[in-house]
Amino acid sequence: MVGSRRSRGFRAERDLVTKLWARGFAVMRAPASGSKVKRAAYPDVVAIRKGHVAVFEVKSRSKEENIYIEKEQVDKLVEFATRASGKAYIAVKVAGSDWVFIPVELLEPTASGYKVSREILARGLNIEQLEVDLGIRETLDKYIKPQHSQA
Amino acid sequence: MVGSRRSRGFRAERDLVTKLWARGFAVMRAPASGSKVKRAAYPDVVAIRKGHVAVFEVKSRSKEENIYIEKEQVDKLVEFATRASGKAYIAVKVAGSDWVFIPVELLEPTASGYKVSREILARGLNIEQLEVDLGIRETLDKYIKPQHSQA
Repeated sequence: MVGSRRSRGFRAERDLVTKLWARGFAVMRAPASGSKVKRAAYPDVVAIRKGHVAVFEVKSRSKEENIYIEKEQVDKLVEFATRASGKAYIAVKVAGSDWVFIPVELLEPTASGYKVSREILARGLNIEQLEVDLGIRETLDKYIKPQHSQA
Repeated sequence: MVGSRRSRGFRAERDLVTKLWARGFAVMRAPASGSKVKRAAYPDVVAIRKGHVAVFEVKSRSKEENIYIEKEQVDKLVEFATRASGKAYIAVKVAGSDWVFIPVELLEPTASGYKVSREILARGLNIEQLEVDLGIRETLDKYIKPQHSQA
C-alpha cells in the first residue's frame, strides 16, 4: 500500500508539473520524491510565472476523504513561500477529478497539524482560479454569467 | 573520473543551495542530479527572493579552465528563466575559490554551444553582485571607496 501510494503520488506530481508547464509556468519538482527525510525542506512542486510564485504540497487520493498534513510540512511550505514572496497551497488530486488547490490559510488546525476536510476541498480553487489568486490573470467575474437579473 | 566529477558536482550544488538559503533565498535543487536525461528540462538550482528569480546551471572544476556548455542546456535554462521572468546564470565553482556567477548573455558562442573562458570568468559576479543584478539590493557603489578625490 505504501508503494502504491508513493507511485500514485509520483504520477500526480508529474501530472501537475505537466499541466502548469502547459499554462506557461516555469515548474520544478523537488528531488528525492518519496524520501521524506531528504526533501523535508522543499515543497513538492514550485511554479513561477512572470515573477508570481506558487509552492505546492501534493496530496493524491484514490477517493475523497479527509486529508491530514503534519504541522512541520505546512511550516516548511509557508517558510519557502514567504522567502519567495509567493503563495502556498495544498494541491489535491482525487482520482477521477480535476486538481483542487487549497490555500494554506484555509486549512483546519488539528491537535497535531492540519486537515483538509471535504468542506474545505469544496471551497478549493481550480487551476484558473489559482492563476487569479496568484495575480497572474484578472478576476474571472466577467466570464461568469450573472445570477441576478440585470433589468 | 566521471564518478568523481559527478560527486563534486553534487557537493557544489549543495554548497550553493546552503549559501543562498543563508542569504534569505527560497532555494530548490533539481531532481535526479547527475542524470542528464531526467533533468534536461530543469535548471540545476532555482533561487527566489521576494519575487526575484535566479536560475542556475552549476559547473564545478578542480582548477581554472575553459568550461564548455551545450547549446541545449543554455536554451532550457533561458526558457525556464523567461517563463519565470527571472535571470539565468552559469554558477561556477573552482576548487579553492568563491562562487562566480556568469549571466548567460556573457557566454561566448562556440560551434556547438557556449564557452566560459578565463576572461569571462574574471568578469563574473560574486554573490553580492548577483543580488544587485537581480534587483534585490541597491548597487554596491556606496560601499566602494571612491577612487577619485572628493575635494
